[in-house]
Amino acid sequence: MKKLINKPEDVVKEELKGIELAHADLVKVYYDPDFIVRADAPVQGKVGLVSGGGSGHEPMHGGFVGKGMLDAACPGAVFTSPTPDQMLEATKAVDGGAGVLHIVKNYTGDVMNFEMAADMARAEGIEVESVIVDDDVAVEDSTWTAGRRGVGLTVLMEKIVGAAAEEGRSLKECADLARKINGQGRSMGMALTSCTVPHVGKPSFDLPEDEMEIGIGIHGEPGRHRIPLEPADKITEMLIEPIVTDLPYKEGDEVVLFVNSMGGTPLIELYIVYAKAVELLAAKGIKVVRHLIGPYITSLEMAGTSITLLKVDEEMLKLWDAPVKTAGMRWGI
Amino acid sequence: MKKLINKPEDVVKEELKGIELAHADLVKVYYDPDFIVRADAPVQGKVGLVSGGGSGHEPMHGGFVGKGMLDAACPGAVFTSPTPDQMLEATKAVDGGAGVLHIVKNYTGDVMNFEMAADMARAEGIEVESVIVDDDVAVEDSTWTAGRRGVGLTVLMEKIVGAAAEEGRSLKECADLARKINGQGRSMGMALTSCTVPHVGKPSFDLPEDEMEIGIGIHGEPGRHRIPLEPADKITEMLIEPIVTDLPYKEGDEVVLFVNSMGGTPLIELYIVYAKAVELLAAKGIKVVRHLIGPYITSLEMAGTSITLLKVDEEMLKLWDAPVKTAGMRWGI
Repeated sequence: MKKLINKPEDVVKEELKGIELAHADLVKVYYDPDFIVRADAPVQGKVGLVSGGGSGHEPMHGGFVGKGMLDAACPGAVFTSPTPDQMLEATKAVDGGAGVLHIVKNYTGDVMNFEMAADMARAEGIEVESVIVDDDVAVEDSTWTAGRRGVGLTVLMEKIVGAAAEEGRSLKECADLARKINGQGRSMGMALTSCTVPHVGKPSFDLPEDEMEIGIGIHGEPGRHRIPLEPADKITEMLIEPIVTDLPYKEGDEVVLFVNSMGGTPLIELYIVYAKAVELLAAKGIKVVRHLIGPYITSLEMAGTSITLLKVDEEMLKLWDAPVKTAGMRWGI
Repeated sequence: MKKLINKPEDVVKEELKGIELAHADLVKVYYDPDFIVRADAPVQGKVGLVSGGGSGHEPMHGGFVGKGMLDAACPGAVFTSPTPDQMLEATKAVDGGAGVLHIVKNYTGDVMNFEMAADMARAEGIEVESVIVDDDVAVEDSTWTAGRRGVGLTVLMEKIVGAAAEEGRSLKECADLARKINGQGRSMGMALTSCTVPHVGKPSFDLPEDEMEIGIGIHGEPGRHRIPLEPADKITEMLIEPIVTDLPYKEGDEVVLFVNSMGGTPLIELYIVYAKAVELLAAKGIKVVRHLIGPYITSLEMAGTSITLLKVDEEMLKLWDAPVKTAGMRWGI
């Protein structure tokens, strides 16, 4: 295992230390239980947005804490759900009296623990709503999931709902918007290589030099099929097609197109995928009106990409364009 | 070779197509010869900043074209110098009457071709100055370099001098500032794995599973030594020490600390390196006042990191903080 780490069991704590040192203007970091909150939390009268999940997907979620996006993030061990006490403490820390929204990727552990945390927070008098993200069209049920997995759409949801909360919308409005986004967004990913979880010390799976996995999950969960390597254009088609047919999208739709790196895939390759994706969508009359290109929801050093499409309207676009200031996404400020 | 590409020889052109489709609000892309310029180029009365080099280091340089940073970038084939005609056309395209500054990383091909382009541009009546970046303390002379290599400091220079040009400074002032930055900045990198140039099709070098290369160049050029793998803290020390002793820095100095991913190293590991670097610098009385953490000058999918330190004063900090709007770096706009 070749990694820039010290002891595998210290990876998350040491990462948090780095975040704390680098981004004190944006966030406060708490330890035991571990969570990251906006530097100015709790913001009085504002809905608090809390997300979290296993570490190893950086910059998600910790890198999305800040003005215009999340109020708090709870990092679990690598590829392991955070615990209810992390979520409870984060919820309490960001409650500004307008309630707290939990954005939960659909993994059994995350869902269960966020439910528990929501119940505990409610028992302490905090109004909590939860929204599940399950945008991955690749498979129904998976290694750690009943139903579809929550993947790339989470990033777009956190940005857009973050902007809505920032402009003072109510908890119900934020939750409704998040559910609407979940209904209008779809993703699919693929891997060229595996990744290695630090405390495991060996690759999560084997993938021969001439094969790839289509429909992979962000923890290396099996996808739809393992097939011989194809050119980028063909791979892009294999990702776009199931997404577009699933919703379905229709001619005239406007979308945010998110081309994500699983971690080890460099930007130069993402732009090749992006160009082909735009072309394929244009042929279907679907117009890309905004984009996100880069490593935003990663699987450690896995090579591969995922594509997310979100059908947007005027309102969502306005919120997408709104200022955001986080370590992982920043514009307008 | 596992990459999201089509034909290896089309990688750069197809990447440019993606950049053109994604960032039409920021840049214009020209083909044959290939170069990228600010969407509003030439900006009348403003010094034009042109850089370039082999592709494979994305987002550098194309991702740094835009308001507050570069006016143009010339991408060569992967790890191959761009040609003088690319540089000449880019120079002409961004000349707004106040002259053009070439920012050149110290690689023999880049230096020679930029010199030729500068001469040709001058022959056409454009005032051109050139600044060489040679911040890599690892080795004197290298595979493609006489003297020290130009690496991470280039990113900081392009940001700071970009801001200076944006606020209307003269060509001489911009060039002097760039040379001052080159005098006050130092870098060193290391690799855990090799990378594969698409048109070569096999890894640039072999690095056994239990070894790393300290002092590597951004094209995989040999470094100082190849030694057994060490923990991140020890590696950070091996990079910081030669940087700090080279200049030298002294107690009370304020610096920008740039922890870069060579491409395949995820953010979670960069924060671990960052935390240790801050601690080591603090022990020497050196204060980190700004930072940059992420993949900004990469070597395709190589795993590894580089550290750059730039000693800054009030003026440089003000320019660092100035608004920038590019695909690869953005704040304040």
